[in-house]
Amino acid sequence: MTVEKRPPWEGPIGIFDSGIGGLTVAAAVRRLLVEEDIFYLGDTARVPYGGKSRETVERYSLEICGLLLAEGAKAIVVACNTASALALERLRQVLRVPVLGVVEPGANAAASTTKSDVVGVMATRSTVRSGAYERALLSLNERLRIVSQECPLLVPLIEEGWLEDPVTDAVLQRYCSPLRAAGADTVVLGCTHYPLIAPAIQRALPGAKLVDSAENTASVLRDTLELHGLRTPPGIRTGRLRVAFTDAGHPFLHIVERELRLPLGEVEYRRVQGVAAL
Amino acid sequence: MTVEKRPPWEGPIGIFDSGIGGLTVAAAVRRLLVEEDIFYLGDTARVPYGGKSRETVERYSLEICGLLLAEGAKAIVVACNTASALALERLRQVLRVPVLGVVEPGANAAASTTKSDVVGVMATRSTVRSGAYERALLSLNERLRIVSQECPLLVPLIEEGWLEDPVTDAVLQRYCSPLRAAGADTVVLGCTHYPLIAPAIQRALPGAKLVDSAENTASVLRDTLELHGLRTPPGIRTGRLRVAFTDAGHPFLHIVERELRLPLGEVEYRRVQGVAAL
Repeated sequence: MTVEKRPPWEGPIGIFDSGIGGLTVAAAVRRLLVEEDIFYLGDTARVPYGGKSRETVERYSLEICGLLLAEGAKAIVVACNTASALALERLRQVLRVPVLGVVEPGANAAASTTKSDVVGVMATRSTVRSGAYERALLSLNERLRIVSQECPLLVPLIEEGWLEDPVTDAVLQRYCSPLRAAGADTVVLGCTHYPLIAPAIQRALPGAKLVDSAENTASVLRDTLELHGLRTPPGIRTGRLRVAFTDAGHPFLHIVERELRLPLGEVEYRRVQGVAAL
Repeated sequence: MTVEKRPPWEGPIGIFDSGIGGLTVAAAVRRLLVEEDIFYLGDTARVPYGGKSRETVERYSLEICGLLLAEGAKAIVVACNTASALALERLRQVLRVPVLGVVEPGANAAASTTKSDVVGVMATRSTVRSGAYERALLSLNERLRIVSQECPLLVPLIEEGWLEDPVTDAVLQRYCSPLRAAGADTVVLGCTHYPLIAPAIQRALPGAKLVDSAENTASVLRDTLELHGLRTPPGIRTGRLRVAFTDAGHPFLHIVERELRLPLGEVEYRRVQGVAAL
């Protein structure tokens, strides 16, 4: 009798976000690691995370990771800035697979880009208030000056599809004004939705270098997989992308599909069962 | 031995919303039924409901009603248009206390106000797509012409506190233009947040009569309580308002408190326990 040995690199990379924005990270992973299977899960039943408390975001993130592990995920990418900022530590305490966030890769990219040593951060309210980007940036270079801006209206504007729109431009003028005034030459797009309006943000921040975490996260993921012997040998196949959400409706999906040129195929549904408890 | 008989009108009125907007309804109930206790629960851990599917909104609404019943609620007001539109039927099937929504009272007010027989409805995406207002309005007057407008950006703008703001005015100009073009003389504010920007909406709809559900819902509640012998005898006391949320953070609360002049006292916290299930 022969026992078939399962190679350690079997199983998909689990990627999650509160919603659909994390597909920008999935697209970058797919480009860099074409042989890897990816299972993407968006928690659209409870989107957005960006205004919610640490306790709630930790709880949701743990639940979603449970669903990814049930799919056999060999590593997990938290492709949501808010969950990366608020829940990454807890996930790493609890889970036995490698867990990557998007804050550290984004901070790394910004710290190595700035010349003025003034870095701007645009993010959701909860991400900004967590101070995660400040801590990550200052641990890389303590001379940096960091200017953070809460941008709660950008996700709704993007999900409305107003990517090139005078209203979006007016909102960006207001959000970007403190970053311009501070002389930030590098600005972190600290929410996975924001790359979808990068041209509009660039107009509001002329001359600034915009940094998004997607490419950097993909290369940190590649290194992590190699370190743990979890990388699918390159060249043997083309991996499969599966996409699932926790709510049946996702009206914004077609915008992402078009902008990212990422064919999603048939979208699946995973239920998060809420049980009331006093 | 004497057994103390508990009067049937004991217990609070349970009022729930996906978040904080339903406090506009709680304020109206408090003004009309000053002797009633009120327990308000906002599901801020999962806000907003407005873009989510019927199945998810039904499930969340049932859970929240479970928490209200645990507080001894003698009647429940669904002070959320999306939950009223998507979950009311299911709640009435399951619960044994009277359950009121805000759609029917709002439709009633609009149908008795319009003279042009053209009624506009401004609401969240899920409320508009449910067709609940159309059905309620046409059942009252089948000659009505109804023009519905999805307004997904208004809740984020209100929660940002941009109540009097050129950006909000620009968004309203766009949303209100089809209602103006159709000749709507009466417009339902089909989301409990919207009364907080009623002056801005009025500027975008000059001459139109704006209808919100709060006052009408309060008077339907009074009639319902009387019908079931559940009304606290007027004059015996002043009821108490308790307010709870399912997430610890609620940055928008001070705006509601100020605009509604509704002192909220100490805010409580109720946990909705999510359990992952495949």
